Amino acid sequence: MHRAAARLPLSLAPPAGMRDLLPPEAGARRQLARTVLELFAQYGYELVTTPPFEHADVIERGQGTLDRRDLLRFVDSDTGEVVLLRPDITPQIARVVATRLADRPPPYRLSYEGHVVRRRRGRARRQRQIAQAGVEHVGTPGTLADAEIVALASRALDALGLGGHTIELRLTPVARTALDPVPEAARAEMAEAVARKDRAAVEELAVRAGLGKAAHRTLAGMIELWGGREVLAAARKVFPASRRQLQALSDLAHGLAAEGLGDRLAFDLGEVRGFGYYTGPSFVLLAEGPGEPLGGGGRYDDLLARFGAPLPATGFGLDLDNLEWALAAAGGGQTPRGPARLVVCGTPARALGVLAGALRRAGAIVATLPAGADGLAFAEGWRYDALLDIGARRVEARRLTDGARARWARDSASPAEIAGWAIGKAER
Amino acid sequence: MHRAAARLPLSLAPPAGMRDLLPPEAGARRQLARTVLELFAQYGYELVTTPPFEHADVIERGQGTLDRRDLLRFVDSDTGEVVLLRPDITPQIARVVATRLADRPPPYRLSYEGHVVRRRRGRARRQRQIAQAGVEHVGTPGTLADAEIVALASRALDALGLGGHTIELRLTPVARTALDPVPEAARAEMAEAVARKDRAAVEELAVRAGLGKAAHRTLAGMIELWGGREVLAAARKVFPASRRQLQALSDLAHGLAAEGLGDRLAFDLGEVRGFGYYTGPSFVLLAEGPGEPLGGGGRYDDLLARFGAPLPATGFGLDLDNLEWALAAAGGGQTPRGPARLVVCGTPARALGVLAGALRRAGAIVATLPAGADGLAFAEGWRYDALLDIGARRVEARRLTDGARARWARDSASPAEIAGWAIGKAER
Repeated sequence: MHRAAARLPLSLAPPAGMRDLLPPEAGARRQLARTVLELFAQYGYELVTTPPFEHADVIERGQGTLDRRDLLRFVDSDTGEVVLLRPDITPQIARVVATRLADRPPPYRLSYEGHVVRRRRGRARRQRQIAQAGVEHVGTPGTLADAEIVALASRALDALGLGGHTIELRLTPVARTALDPVPEAARAEMAEAVARKDRAAVEELAVRAGLGKAAHRTLAGMIELWGGREVLAAARKVFPASRRQLQALSDLAHGLAAEGLGDRLAFDLGEVRGFGYYTGPSFVLLAEGPGEPLGGGGRYDDLLARFGAPLPATGFGLDLDNLEWALAAAGGGQTPRGPARLVVCGTPARALGVLAGALRRAGAIVATLPAGADGLAFAEGWRYDALLDIGARRVEARRLTDGARARWARDSASPAEIAGWAIGKAER
Repeated sequence: MHRAAARLPLSLAPPAGMRDLLPPEAGARRQLARTVLELFAQYGYELVTTPPFEHADVIERGQGTLDRRDLLRFVDSDTGEVVLLRPDITPQIARVVATRLADRPPPYRLSYEGHVVRRRRGRARRQRQIAQAGVEHVGTPGTLADAEIVALASRALDALGLGGHTIELRLTPVARTALDPVPEAARAEMAEAVARKDRAAVEELAVRAGLGKAAHRTLAGMIELWGGREVLAAARKVFPASRRQLQALSDLAHGLAAEGLGDRLAFDLGEVRGFGYYTGPSFVLLAEGPGEPLGGGGRYDDLLARFGAPLPATGFGLDLDNLEWALAAAGGGQTPRGPARLVVCGTPARALGVLAGALRRAGAIVATLPAGADGLAFAEGWRYDALLDIGARRVEARRLTDGARARWARDSASPAEIAGWAIGKAER
């Protein structure tokens, strides 16, 4: 009955870098997004939905460190407009706050879920579609909102069953100032070497670039600026001119410790990666599995002004693919046992419909099959828990999960009675 | 404190025809989609997520009656590929069934939610982004699956509180045959005249086109083919060559009556609108409000073969915008009272955080405000139910809903006690 998977003509693959999500992954993804959006809602973050593409101008106002080559550009053959598939949702939220929400009182607490599209070079399979859910908090300066944001991100991971994660705090605007003296041609390489904590490479690049003593010392010092709270004291010596920024980071760390998150904190002040629009503390969430952050965010006090609404802001985004990866690595993740899944087949069609209705009213997921269909193959192919075969006088139930393959039969009775009996067998 | 809504530079509007959904509409939309997807899941329809754009080839295989001018075409400046913003999700599902799901046993019961993009000409505000949720049932021929699909669409409306809707059954492949003798140049106008039941226009067009007597009589007869079950008998005379198709429609009507949906049925066999890929009975759901269908679908037994997987199929899509319109017209719709929404302000910050935590544990939605913020303006601007102002020794609650503006105060107590008291005041 199955058809062999045909060789895929190019035109039947999704567009380059795009992905289909199939059952059961698509449903699990939806459930995951729902869990985090419901948590965001409890903190007053309300959903905003923005379109999948934007005028190039909107994205470029917020683009920051995104390489133009990482963006997907389209020309609308109708209007001639140049639009970009959004590489980041934050500039869209900034646009919405600055325009259609301008008459609401700050602070703005907004949440979003959707795909962004970026080219990821240097990966075997260049995946361009990244599923995200996140929040933006616009209108509150300083530690209070920063701590709320970081704690919310961390609690979202808790809600998914990922309590064993690390919150790594960064201060990329300060780390970037250390790169200013490096000639532009060598800057990316130096940033990479510092982030890798590769002392030999940093030394060599500093010499090759002919850096002055102070700049050289700062870059060499940054290599050590990762670990626990002790990093904050060390950083005051490496970045003597950045007292205010370091104080903000220290205040944030205190705020998070007061929320009971002290044990999860780590620091990396040698890290310059992250959106170019960050103006203060930023963070990433790390856990076993994906080999890259589960999410991250930070303070961006200048971005809204570029949209005509000068307001301080902070926010974060979670990478849903990486979350699922981490959940799998943590051994299962958030798959509480769902409702019983039952296939009902047999005759007559009328009795089938009535029994299916009774089972659904009792909370089960029910697929009916026409007479003569191969119920067993269907039930196994689509992960059903049990198969019910109804006849004029007898009903047979077969459990398919866990290789159990147990069978039961009983006389016909009222649909509600049969439904209760069958769900019991399926769930045993 | 509010900023005046700035005049919107063109570049700060979303791309032409695209839309932002703001709070609270975006959240309500999400809830609406969840309600219908959960119902679909109870019937075994599992979620598939496909990308917002597709190779032109995939869409065009399923394009049917969509005018090419209604499609939005883009050239990917990277790959040179021509992609279309999807005007319809069904061809994408067909692609997925024919390729990545080829090794699973039929029938396929799949659901989807997402935007399609079409130009809607002839509207003052040419809206191009249409929010849809629907299902496809692939692999079961005939009445059994047709009845399941139509009944499921109707029950989705029930689940939203739209019990007062009509299911209008159509037979567009048959109605289209009647247009075959009409010269191509006059066909669209004739189809429109028949659909409008405009006898004078039909007569005039028939004469002008020089139609033969039989073709003329058929078109004139079609004008009468709308109303209740009596239409089926009349149709046998107007379409004597379409017995099999009329029988399928009659069987479907019987099947739906057996499901208790007989009172909702109407027929319009003069209607030729709907996707060109329909091969059998189709339907639309009608209710007061939007002035266009809330959704619709039908049987399409030829489409999958175009993707290399010859399987019969049926399905439907709901238009979420039109559903919301109908819900508003029906007086409210699905807004059961949600959790209490509270703003907490005052000092110290620590006490604020502890109380907010207690309130959230008790199920409330809580936004905190920094000291000095205008709590009342914020709470009113964002539709909160109540404002809590905490001080060292006293807590004040103010209800904001229904113009009540009632105030209460009490001595400080444990956070859990205060939370219970405040939620009681907010919900009263």
